[in-house]
Amino acid sequence: MSEIIAALSSQFIQVSLPEPHAALVELNRKPVNAFSQEFWTELGHTFDKIGREPSIRVVVLASALPKAFTAGIDLSALATLDTYEKEPDKNALQQRDFLAAFQRSISSIERCPYPVIAAVHGVAYGLAVDIIAACDVRYAASNASFSIKEVDIGLAADIGTLARLPKLAGNLSLVHELAYTARAFGPAEALQMGMVSRVVEGGRNEVVHAALSTAKEIAQKSPIAVLGTKHLLLHARDHSVQENLDYTTVWNGVMLQTADIKESLAAVKAKRKPQYATLGKLPSKL
Amino acid sequence: MSEIIAALSSQFIQVSLPEPHAALVELNRKPVNAFSQEFWTELGHTFDKIGREPSIRVVVLASALPKAFTAGIDLSALATLDTYEKEPDKNALQQRDFLAAFQRSISSIERCPYPVIAAVHGVAYGLAVDIIAACDVRYAASNASFSIKEVDIGLAADIGTLARLPKLAGNLSLVHELAYTARAFGPAEALQMGMVSRVVEGGRNEVVHAALSTAKEIAQKSPIAVLGTKHLLLHARDHSVQENLDYTTVWNGVMLQTADIKESLAAVKAKRKPQYATLGKLPSKL
Amino acid sequence: MSEIIAALSSQFIQVSLPEPHAALVELNRKPVNAFSQEFWTELGHTFDKIGREPSIRVVVLASALPKAFTAGIDLSALATLDTYEKEPDKNALQQRDFLAAFQRSISSIERCPYPVIAAVHGVAYGLAVDIIAACDVRYAASNASFSIKEVDIGLAADIGTLARLPKLAGNLSLVHELAYTARAFGPAEALQMGMVSRVVEGGRNEVVHAALSTAKEIAQKSPIAVLGTKHLLLHARDHSVQENLDYTTVWNGVMLQTADIKESLAAVKAKRKPQYATLGKLPSKL
Amino acid sequence: MSEIIAALSSQFIQVSLPEPHAALVELNRKPVNAFSQEFWTELGHTFDKIGREPSIRVVVLASALPKAFTAGIDLSALATLDTYEKEPDKNALQQRDFLAAFQRSISSIERCPYPVIAAVHGVAYGLAVDIIAACDVRYAASNASFSIKEVDIGLAADIGTLARLPKLAGNLSLVHELAYTARAFGPAEALQMGMVSRVVEGGRNEVVHAALSTAKEIAQKSPIAVLGTKHLLLHARDHSVQENLDYTTVWNGVMLQTADIKESLAAVKAKRKPQYATLGKLPSKL
Amino acid sequence: MSEIIAALSSQFIQVSLPEPHAALVELNRKPVNAFSQEFWTELGHTFDKIGREPSIRVVVLASALPKAFTAGIDLSALATLDTYEKEPDKNALQQRDFLAAFQRSISSIERCPYPVIAAVHGVAYGLAVDIIAACDVRYAASNASFSIKEVDIGLAADIGTLARLPKLAGNLSLVHELAYTARAFGPAEALQMGMVSRVVEGGRNEVVHAALSTAKEIAQKSPIAVLGTKHLLLHARDHSVQENLDYTTVWNGVMLQTADIKESLAAVKAKRKPQYATLGKLPSKL
Amino acid sequence: MSEIIAALSSQFIQVSLPEPHAALVELNRKPVNAFSQEFWTELGHTFDKIGREPSIRVVVLASALPKAFTAGIDLSALATLDTYEKEPDKNALQQRDFLAAFQRSISSIERCPYPVIAAVHGVAYGLAVDIIAACDVRYAASNASFSIKEVDIGLAADIGTLARLPKLAGNLSLVHELAYTARAFGPAEALQMGMVSRVVEGGRNEVVHAALSTAKEIAQKSPIAVLGTKHLLLHARDHSVQENLDYTTVWNGVMLQTADIKESLAAVKAKRKPQYATLGKLPSKL
Repeated sequence: MSEIIAALSSQFIQVSLPEPHAALVELNRKPVNAFSQEFWTELGHTFDKIGREPSIRVVVLASALPKAFTAGIDLSALATLDTYEKEPDKNALQQRDFLAAFQRSISSIERCPYPVIAAVHGVAYGLAVDIIAACDVRYAASNASFSIKEVDIGLAADIGTLARLPKLAGNLSLVHELAYTARAFGPAEALQMGMVSRVVEGGRNEVVHAALSTAKEIAQKSPIAVLGTKHLLLHARDHSVQENLDYTTVWNGVMLQTADIKESLAAVKAKRKPQYATLGKLPSKL
Repeated sequence: MSEIIAALSSQFIQVSLPEPHAALVELNRKPVNAFSQEFWTELGHTFDKIGREPSIRVVVLASALPKAFTAGIDLSALATLDTYEKEPDKNALQQRDFLAAFQRSISSIERCPYPVIAAVHGVAYGLAVDIIAACDVRYAASNASFSIKEVDIGLAADIGTLARLPKLAGNLSLVHELAYTARAFGPAEALQMGMVSRVVEGGRNEVVHAALSTAKEIAQKSPIAVLGTKHLLLHARDHSVQENLDYTTVWNGVMLQTADIKESLAAVKAKRKPQYATLGKLPSKL
Repeated sequence: MSEIIAALSSQFIQVSLPEPHAALVELNRKPVNAFSQEFWTELGHTFDKIGREPSIRVVVLASALPKAFTAGIDLSALATLDTYEKEPDKNALQQRDFLAAFQRSISSIERCPYPVIAAVHGVAYGLAVDIIAACDVRYAASNASFSIKEVDIGLAADIGTLARLPKLAGNLSLVHELAYTARAFGPAEALQMGMVSRVVEGGRNEVVHAALSTAKEIAQKSPIAVLGTKHLLLHARDHSVQENLDYTTVWNGVMLQTADIKESLAAVKAKRKPQYATLGKLPSKL
Repeated sequence: MSEIIAALSSQFIQVSLPEPHAALVELNRKPVNAFSQEFWTELGHTFDKIGREPSIRVVVLASALPKAFTAGIDLSALATLDTYEKEPDKNALQQRDFLAAFQRSISSIERCPYPVIAAVHGVAYGLAVDIIAACDVRYAASNASFSIKEVDIGLAADIGTLARLPKLAGNLSLVHELAYTARAFGPAEALQMGMVSRVVEGGRNEVVHAALSTAKEIAQKSPIAVLGTKHLLLHARDHSVQENLDYTTVWNGVMLQTADIKESLAAVKAKRKPQYATLGKLPSKL
Repeated sequence: MSEIIAALSSQFIQVSLPEPHAALVELNRKPVNAFSQEFWTELGHTFDKIGREPSIRVVVLASALPKAFTAGIDLSALATLDTYEKEPDKNALQQRDFLAAFQRSISSIERCPYPVIAAVHGVAYGLAVDIIAACDVRYAASNASFSIKEVDIGLAADIGTLARLPKLAGNLSLVHELAYTARAFGPAEALQMGMVSRVVEGGRNEVVHAALSTAKEIAQKSPIAVLGTKHLLLHARDHSVQENLDYTTVWNGVMLQTADIKESLAAVKAKRKPQYATLGKLPSKL
Repeated sequence: MSEIIAALSSQFIQVSLPEPHAALVELNRKPVNAFSQEFWTELGHTFDKIGREPSIRVVVLASALPKAFTAGIDLSALATLDTYEKEPDKNALQQRDFLAAFQRSISSIERCPYPVIAAVHGVAYGLAVDIIAACDVRYAASNASFSIKEVDIGLAADIGTLARLPKLAGNLSLVHELAYTARAFGPAEALQMGMVSRVVEGGRNEVVHAALSTAKEIAQKSPIAVLGTKHLLLHARDHSVQENLDYTTVWNGVMLQTADIKESLAAVKAKRKPQYATLGKLPSKL
């Protein structure tokens, strides 16, 4: 088990298993987790691999560094933009491909079948918000400072912030203001906007602790039920209520045949903790 | 009139008319409104009948019991799951049908053309949230305790909670956390999430009182305007802004031909309360 | 420049440029900005013209009058409803056309490519909410009083309130209640619902001041980045996350070819304020 | 078995089982199958019951009368339109309900999980086309005469013709022309438009014979495979290709667990006809 | 009447009324109806004005010139492309506006509430196909020659051909081939593809004669029924079957209240031709 | 160049370049191109690589074998189904992943930015139709024999046939019949259904010759125009007309800035063949 987990770590990303079935993914590129193309590609690979590892049931995403979740994209990564074709049409095709691949790396968090809890502290600028928005649950340390930084470098956020915030937040007036001004905002506004659900007094350690505590709870639940819940919530976000209800009847038509229900009911009756089997190994290449 | 209303009551459901045009539907299966298939089928029939009764203009949905809105599904109802085919494919078709019928019962609340106000107190677990989510307005007593309980019995909530919460709430991080952990949460978190709009100090009586007070206000408004408002708000939830605007021009193209507008304007001019005619009787079989 | 701006003013609408690139549009029909058909048609023309004026980068929408943002539609405008065909079918076609044109006037705010900040004080009833909902950012003075007034005159709000509130707010229970009861609500409930993002202590002057201050910030950002941000946020509201991500790769495929990025990076390096070129003049007839 | 089938017949509809698992539903209201409300309600009940009868696997829909498939709606049924409210708004709500119930009756054919083959001869006017369009496969006798008759009585076809023809046919120019002119058209144009797939020389007997021959083939196939094929084809019609592909992975995720695959492969190997188990009984009330 | 019609003609477009209620719109820019920006803007204005003229009930669109329907866009119109901004981002915004306005001109045909029959002869290249695709019914003279010409000048057709052909035709393999190769094709392939529904032996006069003959038939039908039929068919093209059925119940909820139904039934009974009232005048500014 | 092309070939797939810019992809697994998982994975890789090779502009997909395009899936590949989890829920997750990966392999044809022409001869059963349906243009040799074979092995076709046929064909009655019966059908019915656009007298050589001849034509066109045409046609298939028109303005907003337009116009003026630059190299990892 520990070998499997160890194999998930890479140059800029540490993966550990602080609680049974609950993985901790830590961003670790000094000094402030600035994202190079290599780094975000690694992030995508990490979550895609985690998604195929049935011993994991929930993930906490945090930073290993004391000062920042991430300061955002490493501006030198944008330099590649200059290496493209000079003709606008061909350049546009290349940029489109580049952006699609970049988005796929970050969307790996949403694609991951297990819940991902973002534990955010310190500086969380630019790409930080794209990443956070792809998570399922968002906690902020009281020392967190966010910014939808992209307009400050002359572009509209294109890796998920603008796609996801209007769906996950509850005050679009604030979303628009923060996206237009790029000004820093703290946990209070993040909470008001509905972007985070909990502010944890303190910094990195405190917010990671809180996130792991929630992760531990989730790790003890039926994996098939939790996986289905994430899947159906994300489906609901993007479909009408009736479409989602119909889809749910097909999904649960088979998922209700799970042994986890019998185990849950038996455990209730016996007043013991349920013990769920792990999900089967998924086919090796998605 | 009172006969009509009386005829709406059934084994587990009491219907009364505490204010003109404002019905009170009370769940009443001792001791904690656990839902059997018979009970939820009754609930569906009740709201479908209410929807065809033009003397009603608004509904409050509450529990008649002191301790609980509902503790959720009666686990013995799930026993029927065992009576299905053992082959996964055929079992899935049966489950799908079972779930679709179950959903239709609960969606009767949304299908009901009149606004439905949920007045929730005490225990409100599992199916409680599916039911509440199908209502238009949600009030909680300060003693209310909610739980999206389904993962605790090994399944993803499939009767409306996951379909509707992402649309009606404003903090999806909290929605996800509560759906994954199944932990109980109180009115404060329900308010933060945007699931309820008002917390009423007290228990059953207080919250029902508050809901009836709002219902009384609504009952005095133009029925055609209120019905149209519910219809267009639900349409907006599931369509793009432009689709909804276009649809609204067709809907109001005829609804603006109502006598209620003339009556409203005349009442304003005469400084009196408007008196609106009831909606006509709908054809007997939908 | 001042000539261009002056030419944007009309009978009931004053346009000025209190900050570079930041326009102030003031509603000005005494005594309470009641909207006649002429007035709302003017509003539509104003925003469509502003949208073609590249020297403007952000707009504040406010009232020039001390007591009200707007008391809503001038009821005499509804009198035209009586001049229509008496036959329901033909009347419906006429109403549909009337409503579509009315909606297009108000949707000019959303169509405007630059962010529009609503600075609301005093009475903001009926059409006020339709107008506010079409803005990008919403501030309320502490003396503001809102009402979704339409049911009080016998109709469902049809110019944008019901279409947009379910998407921009985070507490649909409150949205429904306020739409059914037409009761007045203050800034606190507007904030709770997620309809406004800031309450400014005071009245007209204070809220306009706050809005202009935010507008000034936005006016100094890259116009191509801000315009793209508005465009993509509105697209996200009405599409699935994946649809929006895909669309963004095409949009930014060309927008990343902007000189504004180079200017932004150069300014950061040189520790100076960036100076962005204005957007080109759009073709004369949309 | 024959008792079950016999119980499906009613006043205007005969149901028989001319081939194993292949039902024949015959319209039988003299002299020309003019549809009263009672008749179309019966039709809906019939198909809903058939859909719950697992011994049936495919259906042929035909007329029992020599001259007509159906001449369309019985104009006296429209008389009820006059009994409605005189106020346009309330009248519109009643008409809407009436139409929705009418549509649900005809859509029972599409809702039926088994393929339905329309065998059309003679006069097939008005409602005939709505009915045919809800079927899966359409054969016409060479003596068939169709008409989208509705404009001739002053209305747009509202029971399915306009909803379905643009999806199932391949020449929308012809669809539009025939819907605007209400002129009669024969099998050749029906074929050109893509509305029917086969023209059978002769009349009622010949076309029913051909349809039953195809039905017999279908009845020998795996019921789970055929049911899934209908379900996925209809889903594809109304969704994007990618949505349908995704949905198919969930649907077939369980349906591939069927014993029918093993039986199919075994039969191929043994060079014998496969024998498939019937679908399980669906829960008694959908 | 004739004055109204005469007022619809303009520099490059002749409008006449060869049959009661049936207008003939003829393209007339010598020698081959090459489209300048002025010409297509005129076309848009013409159809928008026709759409507000209740005495018209159906339109035939043809060319007044002997050799061509239209040879497509006047290449000198593309010269304006060169006058745009040299920066790719700003240029893109201008092109987008230019294209949107161009599309709106051609989409006026689809927006027109009355059926439009294209009567095509001779050369019909490039923009010709965009125009034809926006019509409801398409007839071709046997001397017609079509080409989706755009790839030959280095661009993808952007004014409607690619948007509409996949929906209106029945052989997408042929649509793709013709769009990639830009080769000329005759009426036989147009028919095979499902793009036209009738080939008329001859040239301009013969095909116009045939189209007018169909138009004459349509002009005698209930205008409310025909208008609704076009509206619902176009809605069906772009929505799921169930969405369209639901929408139809709302649309016909009021349209069934038309006097045209009574007149139709009375005429049938009296064995006379029905006489329908014209649609009311629509509000003066859409 | 020839090295690049050679590198695209693999165990079961031969890639050559019989015309400049026109690739020929030949399926080559004796004796009848039965598809193992390895084979279809290779097919996916091939088309994904082709899509990144700018020297290619169009592709013909054919079989290298004399008797069959492909006889479909190698039934031994289905054996893996047995290696999955025995529990229905976990098995379903595995099957879903397996199917998603399988679909992605075949959808590589649609994902390929260049047009793909299917040249089909001989046996084309089961997976053959899924593959063909993902192509842009479909030609059949007169000796071709098709079958939607899946129901014969107990399952609904899940790799694209049911997803795409309802969109690309023009006679859904025939699509349904052939999908339910699994009977073989020849080129005539394929043509009637709208599945193929041309029947070429003969077998493999003749149909490949015809496809290459069309491919040669396409290869000489502007690559940016052809690529955009494919992209917009596929977008149109899955979106409403208005959505596609809007999207097109953004797409062409940059693509009209191509040098290919200038070259096209210059070539017309000079009466010479245009010479287009190749598309730029796409970033190395999508």
